[in-house]
Amino acid sequence: MPAIVQDFETGEILMLAFMNEEAWGETLKTGMATYWSRTRQELWVKGKTSGNVQWVKEIRIDCDDDTVLLKVDQVGGAACHTGYRSCFFKKVDGDKIRESGEKVFDPKEVYK
Amino acid sequence: MPAIVQDFETGEILMLAFMNEEAWGETLKTGMATYWSRTRQELWVKGKTSGNVQWVKEIRIDCDDDTVLLKVDQVGGAACHTGYRSCFFKKVDGDKIRESGEKVFDPKEVYK
Repeated sequence: MPAIVQDFETGEILMLAFMNEEAWGETLKTGMATYWSRTRQELWVKGKTSGNVQWVKEIRIDCDDDTVLLKVDQVGGAACHTGYRSCFFKKVDGDKIRESGEKVFDPKEVYK
Repeated sequence: MPAIVQDFETGEILMLAFMNEEAWGETLKTGMATYWSRTRQELWVKGKTSGNVQWVKEIRIDCDDDTVLLKVDQVGGAACHTGYRSCFFKKVDGDKIRESGEKVFDPKEVYK
């Protein structure tokens, strides 16, 4: 099930992740956003490596019961492994794509 | 490809839809959000029936190039076929789910 992740304070979209039943249960239990990594095929506590965990402030479900919206408090201010606040830092501008967003950390420093 | 749809003015998340290459091309060409309906297996110009089309104001792509974020001007104010502004009108509250959102139209009046 896709999970849209939104900054609780600013409303900025941070990322899209996926949850299975186990990830959903862990998120409810711990209050920390936990996803299912489809590439690694394992539970993924967001921010476990970088320290940038996401405290869940509000959970919503859509009309079809097939998408989750998490409003989170993003520790460290950056959700993206590239160091940007949001994973959506690429803006489509006519037929060009340019980077547009706030870079919060240098990934080389965080993931050694 | 999943497409997160966000109100351009308020930042509210309206819905999650899906796009294929054709839907992407039509969206760019017409400026109206066009999706791929997975249930009906056809192109879907959002709001064609209800008149609540979505004018696209900004398009962003995520770090992995596998999710789109559309910031839209939602005509009529409601994105959801239930009449709510947003499809995410169900709020998880402990072990209960309650409706929480603004209802803009009565679906019985719109879809006869």
